[in-house]
Amino acid sequence: MWRFLKRLLIGKPLKTLEEGSQHLSRTKALALLSSDALSSVAYGTEQITTALIAASTVALWLQIPIAILVLVLLTAITLSYRQIIHAYPSGGGAYVVTSTNWGRNAGLVAGGSLLVDYMLTVAVSVAAGTEAITSAVPALHPYSVGIGVVIILILMGINLRGVRESAGFLMVPVYLFIVMITGMVLYGLYNIATGQVAFHAAAAIGTSSSSITILLFLRAFSSGSSSLTGVEAISNAVPNFKEPKPRNAAATLSIMALILAFFFGGITFLSYWYGIRPNDHVTVLAQIGQTIFGHGVMFYLLQIATALILAVAANTGFSAFPQLAFNLAKDKFMPHIYMDKGDRLGYSNGIMSLAVGAIVLLLIFNGSTEALIPLYAVGVFVPFTLSQSGMIIHWFREREGFWLGKASINFVGAFISFALVIILFWMHFKSVWPYLIIMPVLLRMFWTINRHYKAVAKQLRVLSKEPIKRHHYDGSTVIVLVSNLTKATADAIDYAQSMGDRVLAMHVSFDSNPEKEHRLGVEFKREFPDVRYVDIHSSYRSITEPSLRFVDEIAKGAKERNHSLTILIPQFVPRHGWQNALHNQNSLRLRTALASRDVTVSTYYFHLKE
Amino acid sequence: MWRFLKRLLIGKPLKTLEEGSQHLSRTKALALLSSDALSSVAYGTEQITTALIAASTVALWLQIPIAILVLVLLTAITLSYRQIIHAYPSGGGAYVVTSTNWGRNAGLVAGGSLLVDYMLTVAVSVAAGTEAITSAVPALHPYSVGIGVVIILILMGINLRGVRESAGFLMVPVYLFIVMITGMVLYGLYNIATGQVAFHAAAAIGTSSSSITILLFLRAFSSGSSSLTGVEAISNAVPNFKEPKPRNAAATLSIMALILAFFFGGITFLSYWYGIRPNDHVTVLAQIGQTIFGHGVMFYLLQIATALILAVAANTGFSAFPQLAFNLAKDKFMPHIYMDKGDRLGYSNGIMSLAVGAIVLLLIFNGSTEALIPLYAVGVFVPFTLSQSGMIIHWFREREGFWLGKASINFVGAFISFALVIILFWMHFKSVWPYLIIMPVLLRMFWTINRHYKAVAKQLRVLSKEPIKRHHYDGSTVIVLVSNLTKATADAIDYAQSMGDRVLAMHVSFDSNPEKEHRLGVEFKREFPDVRYVDIHSSYRSITEPSLRFVDEIAKGAKERNHSLTILIPQFVPRHGWQNALHNQNSLRLRTALASRDVTVSTYYFHLKE
Repeated sequence: MWRFLKRLLIGKPLKTLEEGSQHLSRTKALALLSSDALSSVAYGTEQITTALIAASTVALWLQIPIAILVLVLLTAITLSYRQIIHAYPSGGGAYVVTSTNWGRNAGLVAGGSLLVDYMLTVAVSVAAGTEAITSAVPALHPYSVGIGVVIILILMGINLRGVRESAGFLMVPVYLFIVMITGMVLYGLYNIATGQVAFHAAAAIGTSSSSITILLFLRAFSSGSSSLTGVEAISNAVPNFKEPKPRNAAATLSIMALILAFFFGGITFLSYWYGIRPNDHVTVLAQIGQTIFGHGVMFYLLQIATALILAVAANTGFSAFPQLAFNLAKDKFMPHIYMDKGDRLGYSNGIMSLAVGAIVLLLIFNGSTEALIPLYAVGVFVPFTLSQSGMIIHWFREREGFWLGKASINFVGAFISFALVIILFWMHFKSVWPYLIIMPVLLRMFWTINRHYKAVAKQLRVLSKEPIKRHHYDGSTVIVLVSNLTKATADAIDYAQSMGDRVLAMHVSFDSNPEKEHRLGVEFKREFPDVRYVDIHSSYRSITEPSLRFVDEIAKGAKERNHSLTILIPQFVPRHGWQNALHNQNSLRLRTALASRDVTVSTYYFHLKE
Repeated sequence: MWRFLKRLLIGKPLKTLEEGSQHLSRTKALALLSSDALSSVAYGTEQITTALIAASTVALWLQIPIAILVLVLLTAITLSYRQIIHAYPSGGGAYVVTSTNWGRNAGLVAGGSLLVDYMLTVAVSVAAGTEAITSAVPALHPYSVGIGVVIILILMGINLRGVRESAGFLMVPVYLFIVMITGMVLYGLYNIATGQVAFHAAAAIGTSSSSITILLFLRAFSSGSSSLTGVEAISNAVPNFKEPKPRNAAATLSIMALILAFFFGGITFLSYWYGIRPNDHVTVLAQIGQTIFGHGVMFYLLQIATALILAVAANTGFSAFPQLAFNLAKDKFMPHIYMDKGDRLGYSNGIMSLAVGAIVLLLIFNGSTEALIPLYAVGVFVPFTLSQSGMIIHWFREREGFWLGKASINFVGAFISFALVIILFWMHFKSVWPYLIIMPVLLRMFWTINRHYKAVAKQLRVLSKEPIKRHHYDGSTVIVLVSNLTKATADAIDYAQSMGDRVLAMHVSFDSNPEKEHRLGVEFKREFPDVRYVDIHSSYRSITEPSLRFVDEIAKGAKERNHSLTILIPQFVPRHGWQNALHNQNSLRLRTALASRDVTVSTYYFHLKE
C-alpha cells in the first residue's frame, strides 16, 4: 500500500547507472537554478525605494546610483563565480572553495551560512509567492500559511521524483516570467523613447537635500543587495550539468547574470522615471506593470508570472541544499544519511530536511518575511566574501598565466561583499543578530559530529600490517525468553538447541498468580528435560531489570567457559501490521535494554497465519 | 535523566504486593468518585430552564415537576446500582452486568458507550471548569484551550502516581463544593422560611399556557437528565474500595445520591422561587449564589469551588476508564497493553489513552461543550438501560428471597432510562447522531481484536494429551551482513563461528565504486578463508531487496540440509543516544524486512567506547 503510493507519487526507482541521463542542459539548468536570482527583482527595487522614501521623496533619485553599484557588484560576483566554476568543477561552491583556501573553520562558516540560507530561500520565496496568490484572490488570505505549507510539500514531491523531471516541470513559469518582464521593460523604454510617457521622477538625479546622507545611501544599498541572493546556486550545482560541466555551468551563469542585470536595471530605471512610490498595498513591480500595461489581461499575467517564479525560486533551495549537505556529510560534518540517494537518485534526506526546516520557519514567522530579508542577505554575503577572498589565495598559490588579473576580479568581489556584510550588521542589527547565535551552534554541531565519526573510525580500523585479532570461542550459551508454554516456545527452544551448546530458559514471574507460575515450571521441565529452567521473580511488574540482572550473571559464567552469549526472544509476526498493537511490547523494551550489554540479541520470528 | 524525571513526577515504583494498601476508605472514595455526579448540578438545572424559557417564561414552573421526575429517576438508579454492587462485587459495572445477562454484544454496546462517555466526561468537565476559570479572570480567555490541555495533563500525572494519593489530593475541592452548596441551599431556604425573600417565581405552579406542551416537557426533562451523569462511576470501581468492598461501595453510593438529590432539588427549587432566568453571561447557579450571598467573598468562593469540582469531575473518568479498559482487555476485546499495571499500580496505558482522547475532543470542539451534553447523556443512559434490564434477568434467574421486589426496582430504572434514550434521540437528534456511527465502529473493532486473539491462541495452543511436536535440526547456517572490513566485522564473524556450523558473509555492493568493492572481497577472503564471501550487486541503492532474494535462496539450501538459519546483523551502539542518528538505518530496514521470512535475525552489538 505504502509502496504503491510511493511509486505513484515519486515514480519508479532509477538504477544508479541511469544517473548520467539525469544531467541538465543549459536551458533546463537556467530554469532550475536561476529562478531564485531572477525572482529577486520582484522585491529588490522595492527594498531600495522603501529605504529611501523613509528619509524623503527627494532622495528617491538615489536609486539610480545605488542600482549602478549593485550592477557593479553583480558583475564582480558573476566573473568571480565563473572562475570558481572552472577551478572547482566538482561543485560545492563557497563551502569547498573556502575550505580549500581558508581552512576548515572558515569553510564550515560558509557551509553553515548557506544551509540556513537555503531554508530561508524556501521560506521567504514561498511566503512571498503565497502573498502574490492571496493578493489576487483575497478570499484565500486566511489560509495563507496552509497554502505555503502545501506549496513546500509539492516542491518536495517534485524533487523526490528527480532532478531532470523537475526542470521540465519548472521551465514554464521561469520562461513566462522572463518573457513578461522583458516585454514590460522594453515596452516601457519604447514609450519613454517615443515620448509617450513624460518624465515623472520625484526629483532629478543630483537634486541635493539635507536628507541625503551617506548613512541613508548605505542603508538603501544594503537593502537592495538582496537582489543578488541566489546568484551562487549555479556554482554549487556544477555536477548536475551535462558534459562539459564547467563550460555549460559558466555559460548558464553568464546568461542568468545578463538577464538579471537587464531586469534589475530596467525596473529600477522605470521606477525612477515614472516616479513610483512604494506603498503597503501594491508592490513597486505591480505599479510599474499597471502604468505600462494598464489594468488588463497583461497586468494579471505579470502578477501570475511573479507569483509562480517566487514559488519556483524556492525550488533552487531544493537542488542546492541536498548537494551541500552531501558535501558536508562526505567530510564527516553532517550525518551520513545525507549521502544516501533515494529511489529516484535525489538525496532524499536532504530534500526532506529542507522541507521540514522551511515549514517550521513559515510557521514561526507566520508567513511574514520582511524581517527575514536582511538575515537572508547576511547568510548570502558571508560565504560570498569567504569564497572570493579564498579565490585570491587560490590564484596566489597557482600564479599561472593571467593570475593577477583574475585575483583582482576576485578582490573587487570580496571587498564589496565584505563591505556589505559590515553595512548589514551596522544598519540592520535588529534583524541580523540571530546569525551570531545560529553560527556558533552550527559550528559546534559540525565538529561534534566530526569528532564522533573520527573516533568510530579509529575504533573500527583494521591495520593492514598486523593480522586481525580473532577470538575463538569454545562454545555458545543461549538464553531463551519464555513467557508461557506454546508452540512458539517449543519452536524457539528447538532453534536454540541447533545453535547453542548450552540452552537456558528464562521466565519472569509476577506476584499475581503463583499457582500458574508453578504449573508452568513443572510442565516446562517435563517437556524440555534437557533445558535448564530459571524462574526470575519480579516485584515491580517489569521484566527488564530482573532479566538484565540474570543475563549479567550468566554472562560471567559464559566468559569463564569462553562461550559466546545469545539472548533469544521469540516474537509474533501477525499477518497484518496493525495487529502488532495487540501484542505487548515487553520484548521490544527488553531488546533495547540488552543493547547496553555485551551479548547478541536474537529474534525468533513466529509467523501467525491468521 | 528520563528515569529521574519519571521518578520525580510519578513517584517511586510500588511492589505488586503493596496493592492492598492502595484501597479507598468511604470518605476518600466519595471525593474520588462522586465529583462527576455532584458537579452535574452546576449545569443540570440550567439545562432544564434553558429548554423551558425557549418556549415561554410562563413554562418555567415546569422545572418543579421535571425536577421531581429526575429525583425519582435518581432514586431508581441508585437503588438499582446498589443491587448491582452487591451482585457483582468485582466491578465492571454496566459492561459486566450486561455481558452476563444480555450476552456479549449488548455488553460491548454498554462498554463501548461508557468508554466514549468517560472521554466526554473528561472533555466536558475540563472545558466547563476552564470556562469557570476564564469567567473569573477574563484575561485568560484566549488561552482557554491551552488551560484545558494543561488541566488534563495534570490529572493524568496525578493518576499515574496511583489511586490513593490522588484521592488525598482531590478531597479538598469536593468537600469545599459540598460545604458551599449545602450552605447556599440552607441559607436560601432559611431566607424563604423567615419571609426575608418574597415569592418571585415567573409563574406559579400549575399556571396554564398554550406554550406548555408534552414535547416541551420531554425536551426539558431529557436535557435535565444530564444531572444524573456520573452516578455509575462507583459501581465500576468496587475493587478499589477497602474491605468489605461491596458494603463500602453501596454506602458511598447512597451518601452520594442523597447529597446529589438535596443539591439538585434545592437548587431547582431556589431557581423556581427566585424566578431565575438563564442567560449567556451568568450561569443559573451563579445567579442563585449572587442573590443569596450578594456579590462578595462567599460568591467568589462558590465560583472557585464550582470551577474546582468540575476539574476534579474529570478525574472520575481517570479512575473508571482504565478499569473498564482492563475488563475489556481481559475478555480479549481490547489490546492487552490495557492490562499492564504501571510503576505505581495504576493502569498507565488506560490513563494515557484517556488523556489523549480527551485532549483531542477538547481541540476538535475548541472548548465548546454544549452540543456534547446530549451525546454524553445518550452514552450514559444506554448502559443504564442495558445494565438495569440485565438485572431483571439476573433476578429471574436467581429467584431467591425478595427477588420480585428487587426486579421491580430495576424495572422502573430500566424503563425510565430507556424512555430517556428514546426522548434524547427524538428531541436532540442533531447532537446525538454520531453515536450511531461510533458504536458500530467500536463494536467492529472489539470483535476484530477478539477474533485475532482467539486465532493466535489457537495457533499457539499446546494440547496436553499429545506430546509437543519437536524439530531436531542437524546443524545451523549463519549469514553475516558485512559492509566493510573492520574490527566489528571480525568480532561478528568470530561470534557467528561459535554458533553456526556453516558461516556465510553477505556483502551488498553498489555501482559507485567497483574497485573498492573488489578490494574488499580480496581482503576479506584473505582474512577469513573459512568463510564463504558473497557479493550481491544492487542497482537501486537499496540493500533490502537483493538481501532478501539471497536469504531466500540460502534458506532453501538450509532446509534441505535440515539446518536452522540465522541472519547476523552487526550494529554499532554509541555511548550517547543522539549518536544513533549518525549511523545509517539500513540495518534497521533490513531487519524489518526479514521479519517476513522464516529466519532468526540476530543483532551483534559492537559497543563504541568514545
